[in-house]
Amino acid sequence: MSAIDETLQANQAYARSFNLANLPIPPARKLAIVACMDARLTVEQALGLKTGEAHIIRNAGGVVTEDALRSLIISHYLLGTQEFMIINHTDCGMLTFHDEQLKQKLQAATHTTAVIPAAFHSFDDLEQNVREQIQRVQSHPWIPKAIPVRGFIYDVHSGKLNEVKA
Amino acid sequence: MSAIDETLQANQAYARSFNLANLPIPPARKLAIVACMDARLTVEQALGLKTGEAHIIRNAGGVVTEDALRSLIISHYLLGTQEFMIINHTDCGMLTFHDEQLKQKLQAATHTTAVIPAAFHSFDDLEQNVREQIQRVQSHPWIPKAIPVRGFIYDVHSGKLNEVKA
Repeated sequence: MSAIDETLQANQAYARSFNLANLPIPPARKLAIVACMDARLTVEQALGLKTGEAHIIRNAGGVVTEDALRSLIISHYLLGTQEFMIINHTDCGMLTFHDEQLKQKLQAATHTTAVIPAAFHSFDDLEQNVREQIQRVQSHPWIPKAIPVRGFIYDVHSGKLNEVKA
Repeated sequence: MSAIDETLQANQAYARSFNLANLPIPPARKLAIVACMDARLTVEQALGLKTGEAHIIRNAGGVVTEDALRSLIISHYLLGTQEFMIINHTDCGMLTFHDEQLKQKLQAATHTTAVIPAAFHSFDDLEQNVREQIQRVQSHPWIPKAIPVRGFIYDVHSGKLNEVKA
């Protein structure tokens, strides 16, 4: 059975015992999180969040890209979130390559170039990367200065979140 | 206590009983998922996925943006995923506004314009939107044609995933 078909089978069991039919759209804790897509981090579990409580935005690295800013702006203005969290993690794949090297590998593997993505956002220094993501959020003209934006590194070997001070 | 401080308190309990110190980086089920950030969808729970099993990419709408493509390419080429799933959902906030209207609201609220995000990716037709996202993935020159790309609508009132046929 394919991995996707396995998830569909599991979803049938989930739907049979589903009892969250009437959750409101706005996240109950008024919280939005930008985190890495890494399989070893289940954001809701690691942060004690239940279904309905927070917006979870995830991409390779937990990077504040144009798309993450888009999502945060929608989260705040349309759905009322008032605190933003950014989560990177130890042992991240983004620390293991450089953009140009991956681009060359893809061009060689596929014999084609591509205009997007314009960048892969690999990085060398985890703490510095978190600080830069905080700054990208705080410096956006549409993000209100009153919103707390805090950054963290999740330790995949201990399960612990450690705050990165700006 | 702030919402962020509440998550940090919950994380202390999570870390105390943490027993996943040695998960490998590549997702065990070789699966990557692009889903909406909506608080009412806990992707791992709804799909029966355990920590370590899949890459979870999320943004406003579950849209295959440049950033989602970046994440999928990294997921496949660096970390070996072989199946892609796209998940939108009923009652999505992206169905409730139009890009131009939100842009005007933001400009009026902040008295400033912004270059990014260039688009908010609101949409009117949920099924059609899912089909377009599948096509965006399949048409990217760096995504191998052999990778299955399947699209779904999650029903927030029943917990059920329904497949959208291309």
